[in-house]
Amino acid sequence: MDIYVALVHHPVRNRKGDVVTTAVTNLDIHDLARASRTYDVRGMYIVTPLEQQRSLVSRIIAHWQEGEGTTYNPIRGEAFTRVRVAASTEDASLDIETKCGRRPLWVATGANLDRETIPYDSLRERIEAEDGPLLLLFGTGWGLTDEFLQRCDQWLPGVRAVEGRGDYNHLSVRSAVSIILDRLLGDR
Amino acid sequence: MDIYVALVHHPVRNRKGDVVTTAVTNLDIHDLARASRTYDVRGMYIVTPLEQQRSLVSRIIAHWQEGEGTTYNPIRGEAFTRVRVAASTEDASLDIETKCGRRPLWVATGANLDRETIPYDSLRERIEAEDGPLLLLFGTGWGLTDEFLQRCDQWLPGVRAVEGRGDYNHLSVRSAVSIILDRLLGDR
Repeated sequence: MDIYVALVHHPVRNRKGDVVTTAVTNLDIHDLARASRTYDVRGMYIVTPLEQQRSLVSRIIAHWQEGEGTTYNPIRGEAFTRVRVAASTEDASLDIETKCGRRPLWVATGANLDRETIPYDSLRERIEAEDGPLLLLFGTGWGLTDEFLQRCDQWLPGVRAVEGRGDYNHLSVRSAVSIILDRLLGDR
Repeated sequence: MDIYVALVHHPVRNRKGDVVTTAVTNLDIHDLARASRTYDVRGMYIVTPLEQQRSLVSRIIAHWQEGEGTTYNPIRGEAFTRVRVAASTEDASLDIETKCGRRPLWVATGANLDRETIPYDSLRERIEAEDGPLLLLFGTGWGLTDEFLQRCDQWLPGVRAVEGRGDYNHLSVRSAVSIILDRLLGDR
């Protein structure tokens, strides 16, 4: 399967549970671009309804792909070929559908999804066996809203350590994306 | 085994291959603290010979453990209980030896270690079966120097995607630490 990633800045929750739009973080884009390129993610969408934030991301992409960044660090520029911007996850999904001729399977991630989840190994096998695009969804802030989760096709369990090593699971979204891509696509 | 992590800022290479001391990055500390807490890493050492950088790290730790950070986000403070500072990897190793009564096994990581490496599954089994501390070493910048690598006991292969998904492997150190902890200690 062709894998796509969306880093969703809206609709997500804040610490108090309110639905908010988080700010784009420069380092998220860098880390996710590098991880996306490493695991052959076809497109890594930065999703935000804020036009100014989307144009900020576009400027960062241009810096590394066309601007001074190309001579400073061409390897980084290569990673940035995978980064896209979208005003909503639906827009990202339509963009993928246009490219692949099929709507992607929406697979949500989160630390504590109160739903029936698909085991990592099952999704890994499905990725190897099937065609058709898959869109992995990551929420920023304190995670994707319940209403949003409801619209997804599948849900992955929260990343955790083996039993006996505690139950803290407050990873950064940068760590979570990296680990989940490795669980699904790593050479283990 | 009790797992420890060292994020090494010296001796590492820069883009040109020179041996340098890199600057401490605030977000590295946050992401690695959260990943360390999630995988029950007993101590995550920020290693730098620069005294000013060590006191900066100590101030960041204090902010989240004793200062305003404790009320703003107590969960983050909990992650910071795992963070330590050390002037050198040898100092970190001696600190672990004092705690555990045994010198830790030094296990180096890197994108392209030109050495005989131990497979992740073998080290995972060893962690489950054996006692005694293990120190995972991560280089910042463009990686640990050859002289430093020579002093380690074991070397892990660079993190890569499954065959057919290309051979780019320029992950951020934040991504690399997260993925390697998950490969060794995750609940897959």
